[in-house]
Amino acid sequence: MSTRLTLRLDFETGRRLGPGKIALLEAIRRTGSISAAGRELCMAYRRAWLLVDELNHTFEDPLIETRGGGRNGGGATLTGLGERVVALYRAAETKVHKSTMAEIRKMERSLAPALPDE
Amino acid sequence: MSTRLTLRLDFETGRRLGPGKIALLEAIRRTGSISAAGRELCMAYRRAWLLVDELNHTFEDPLIETRGGGRNGGGATLTGLGERVVALYRAAETKVHKSTMAEIRKMERSLAPALPDE
Repeated sequence: MSTRLTLRLDFETGRRLGPGKIALLEAIRRTGSISAAGRELCMAYRRAWLLVDELNHTFEDPLIETRGGGRNGGGATLTGLGERVVALYRAAETKVHKSTMAEIRKMERSLAPALPDE
Repeated sequence: MSTRLTLRLDFETGRRLGPGKIALLEAIRRTGSISAAGRELCMAYRRAWLLVDELNHTFEDPLIETRGGGRNGGGATLTGLGERVVALYRAAETKVHKSTMAEIRKMERSLAPALPDE
């Protein structure tokens, strides 16, 4: 059995970082575009842009850099800090998995049967 | 600086467990009542009961036991399994804090200034 663990960070500055924003950063890296990344995550165009704006104000420097033309003209890439934040979050997540394995296994052994598929 | 970390578990059975449900379990233990627990967490009465119902179907046995009369008549306590699940979750959370401290500190050093108070 494999329980999925997700980690949410609430910084003292009032900003937050969780699995949705990290997935968006990784999709931007993969697709080179904010709108393509949004589509890949089934996220409304406007929502993807709002999250990018929030991410770019969470740390002292932007995490995402946009280049070139209008709405569909340019591209987007992660900055060095963007790459670093993704790597730190994923490293933390791996440690979370390892460090909590014993507790998770104990909970799994007492779970009720699976919900029927809808 | 102290970043708040929260842990969410998505079990393969389709059930989930996170900070809200654990806080509700702890409030029920503290107050001895589902409705008082809901009030303490500023949660609508109906929502508290729905979460209790969900919690009582997540594991092979109930986590919360109700006794006595009608809506406001009886009381509620955690079962042995309820106590165990709370303890396992909090133990996992402590391990999460310890194991991810290095990554969190590195992120904190690059944070933008705090958001102004609203």
